[in-house]
Amino acid sequence: MTKPEHTNEIREARRRASEHIKPSPVFVLVEPQMGENIGAAARAMLNFGASCLRLVRPRDGWPNAKAGATASGASVVIDSVTVFDTIDEAIADCNFVLATTARQRELALPVMDAKSAIAATGPIIMSGGRAAVLFGGERNGLSSEDTARANAILSVPVNPAFSSLNLAQAVCLVAYEWSNSQTLSMDFHANSSFPAPAQKELATHLIEYFFELLDRAGYFYPPEKAPLMRRNMRTALLRAEFTANEITSLHGALKAISKKPV
Amino acid sequence: MTKPEHTNEIREARRRASEHIKPSPVFVLVEPQMGENIGAAARAMLNFGASCLRLVRPRDGWPNAKAGATASGASVVIDSVTVFDTIDEAIADCNFVLATTARQRELALPVMDAKSAIAATGPIIMSGGRAAVLFGGERNGLSSEDTARANAILSVPVNPAFSSLNLAQAVCLVAYEWSNSQTLSMDFHANSSFPAPAQKELATHLIEYFFELLDRAGYFYPPEKAPLMRRNMRTALLRAEFTANEITSLHGALKAISKKPV
Repeated sequence: MTKPEHTNEIREARRRASEHIKPSPVFVLVEPQMGENIGAAARAMLNFGASCLRLVRPRDGWPNAKAGATASGASVVIDSVTVFDTIDEAIADCNFVLATTARQRELALPVMDAKSAIAATGPIIMSGGRAAVLFGGERNGLSSEDTARANAILSVPVNPAFSSLNLAQAVCLVAYEWSNSQTLSMDFHANSSFPAPAQKELATHLIEYFFELLDRAGYFYPPEKAPLMRRNMRTALLRAEFTANEITSLHGALKAISKKPV
Repeated sequence: MTKPEHTNEIREARRRASEHIKPSPVFVLVEPQMGENIGAAARAMLNFGASCLRLVRPRDGWPNAKAGATASGASVVIDSVTVFDTIDEAIADCNFVLATTARQRELALPVMDAKSAIAATGPIIMSGGRAAVLFGGERNGLSSEDTARANAILSVPVNPAFSSLNLAQAVCLVAYEWSNSQTLSMDFHANSSFPAPAQKELATHLIEYFFELLDRAGYFYPPEKAPLMRRNMRTALLRAEFTANEITSLHGALKAISKKPV
């Protein structure tokens, strides 16, 4: 059994480690496989002052003893991990989402280097919003469907012939750029009167509603093209970064024009 | 025994992986302990196109089977590792040396962020010289004696209360900054396949069509609020920067849902 003084030491170490945690992007690992990589990712996050880690369908469930062991003291991150069934749920409360992938996709999404992509999250976070960064699992990375949830692709200049970054290394680079962006400019928010994009949940509702109307109207035709049509439409509308007010207006607008003419 | 065709495959994969290796800094691990970390470091180096790895007094000798296993295909790096008894020997042929350490030392050495430090190696390497980066072992990092061998300290903005970076993560960050410094002069952004926003004329047509449908549906009500409602809607849709293809799809989609239900 742990001795009380030991527990106090741990508590004190955790308190100290979390003192320097600032609001930072949410790190979302999609279908991570190895607990060791989750732990190493948590450690790298805390190294750079980030702490919010979310998992989507971790292969070995959660909690994961190997993750705790590899985290090397980053229990403040591991203990507050939250687990989700879908990416949409994991980013429901986020206003801006980046997808880390080395591959070029047939998605109409801007590709940004890590520094610029992370810099773009600054104003969102400073104004009280949430930004998320998606990381794919060890085996396949992010699918096009996953990536279509994002506002932009975060890409790093890897060796094209040896491009598969270890999951924890990818997390480390993003956390590092976050820390860089913080120390370089603390006064991000000074002139950012522009309202933040709505939380993804709202955008997702709008898109689902639009799709429902389009389904009823027989728009997604022929059936074999429907998934691609949906994906492209989703990408366009998410990338638009509508504000909450704009989404409310568009919802009402779509409802109005879909009504039976009087 | 390995079959000949398998060997050929490996040889071909290695050839391809090394095709993209440019002259880069020499990575020097001083008294590394775990083979796994050496392997992960080799992988991270090759991810970013670096390949020259030197070890000073590795705890478990060399070669190290665990290093090979963790390198995940970066055998082009592992196989050309050279081992030295002292730092001085390891950097004997180098013109410029950086020491990675999070700690401030009582040494009269400039402290540079990773980006600036790596940028400083560029001219050395481009002119045919060698630059080295020193990394301390897992337990103690670099001693003051070790660090005194360097021209400058390379420092990254870590959480002061949780500052101990994993060895392979530190190598990854430096290799990443090296690759960044190289691609800045190349066309990393040029080949981004993201299509340009459509010409404003197309976006305007879409918006006018949308407004026409909304007018017919009686959406802009009450009349005194109509101008503001239109302006806000226009702003949202223009800011979205839809591509020409997306505008065509949205046009068709709006047409579909506004039709009289059959």
